[in-house]
Amino acid sequence: MTRKLYDLLGADDRRFSPFCWRARLALAHKGLEADDVPCGFTEMETVAFAGSKTVPVLVDGDNTVADSWSIALYLEAAYPDGPSLFGGEQGEALARFVAHWCDTALHPAVFRVVIGDLINVVRPEDLVYFRASREKRLGMTIEEAAAKRDDWAPRLTAALAPLRAQLGERDFVSGAAPAYADYIVFGAFQWARCASAYPILAEEPVIAAWRARMLDLFGGLARAAPAIDAAA
Amino acid sequence: MTRKLYDLLGADDRRFSPFCWRARLALAHKGLEADDVPCGFTEMETVAFAGSKTVPVLVDGDNTVADSWSIALYLEAAYPDGPSLFGGEQGEALARFVAHWCDTALHPAVFRVVIGDLINVVRPEDLVYFRASREKRLGMTIEEAAAKRDDWAPRLTAALAPLRAQLGERDFVSGAAPAYADYIVFGAFQWARCASAYPILAEEPVIAAWRARMLDLFGGLARAAPAIDAAA
Repeated sequence: MTRKLYDLLGADDRRFSPFCWRARLALAHKGLEADDVPCGFTEMETVAFAGSKTVPVLVDGDNTVADSWSIALYLEAAYPDGPSLFGGEQGEALARFVAHWCDTALHPAVFRVVIGDLINVVRPEDLVYFRASREKRLGMTIEEAAAKRDDWAPRLTAALAPLRAQLGERDFVSGAAPAYADYIVFGAFQWARCASAYPILAEEPVIAAWRARMLDLFGGLARAAPAIDAAA
Repeated sequence: MTRKLYDLLGADDRRFSPFCWRARLALAHKGLEADDVPCGFTEMETVAFAGSKTVPVLVDGDNTVADSWSIALYLEAAYPDGPSLFGGEQGEALARFVAHWCDTALHPAVFRVVIGDLINVVRPEDLVYFRASREKRLGMTIEEAAAKRDDWAPRLTAALAPLRAQLGERDFVSGAAPAYADYIVFGAFQWARCASAYPILAEEPVIAAWRARMLDLFGGLARAAPAIDAAA
């Protein structure tokens, strides 16, 4: 059976999409391999067959699934014998809450502290699209946003509060073992790590220790990804 | 068997502690009744026997449990035949994440928009303690904080983002049915409702509809509590 994961491609084979990392780690959690199909920001016609304008997109035999959350639900239903991504209905609903927190609180804060570096790992042919779409989101130029990094660092520190507390009590967001909620949150830090040398967790030893555990999972799958600062 | 819940007492029998509401609703979820033992802010010697300086405290036969989270864990373990509060280990861990989000993001935002009203439902004998402890937390007088309500409303709107998204997709935070994560979040709104006529969810129809469902649970248990604006 053919299994393919369409993944966002940056310069020098960097893979920084936090949503694609969620999908990649969800596949690994289920013990599944998939062929890698990289797509640049301006190559999304590649996934038009899936009715999508974004990646990740998973093709699994006859099934095509777009969107990282839909991919996780699909994998949980299609591969019930593998380790569970959610541990039941409440776990699934609350993992979705973690995703909403990540998308509305953590991602915007991470985005603002790494945006000045992120643009340097975008492929040259994607730069016009990237700059226009991100500057619209920021309400300013990328250079103006990058100059405010130190102003935004405290916002990130504040956004991390629930994660810091959670990981002060248990090894993983999901409990004693990693599961989908961990992959959701980890995606944000892998996005930063693959694009920026900014020491995003320098003052966050508890979260940094969890990130190290996450980088070690599945034979070091995430650690092996090209990063700006492999030591970070 | 004797079962008692020590609950925070305000003026005119108001019960606004969000943590006590978590415990009260967790008991109801398990189908358990408990005698009500109200304690004012300056009467915490009443729960010294539990090694606690705060409420809620649950006494259940020979067992004494302080702290709302510990009470939820105790009830889940001691009453496995009642409806589950967590739906398994991942659900439990992620409900704890919701609690950390609530404590670090939602509560501070709610606190700042209702503090000017909250002081009016504190018993006269507790006012010196309440003012000193809350002004220390605020870094300003309660009156100064109350005057800034309109400045803080947007912070609350921002803090609500993950909850708004979650409840746009499902009836309850925990999925199709309410469970402990719902009681955690609901406590914040019941705190506001029992202390303030401020229309905290006027611009949040999705969250307001969920709150109405929560107020209806267990025969209208939370709706029956003395509130400033019973219509809110």
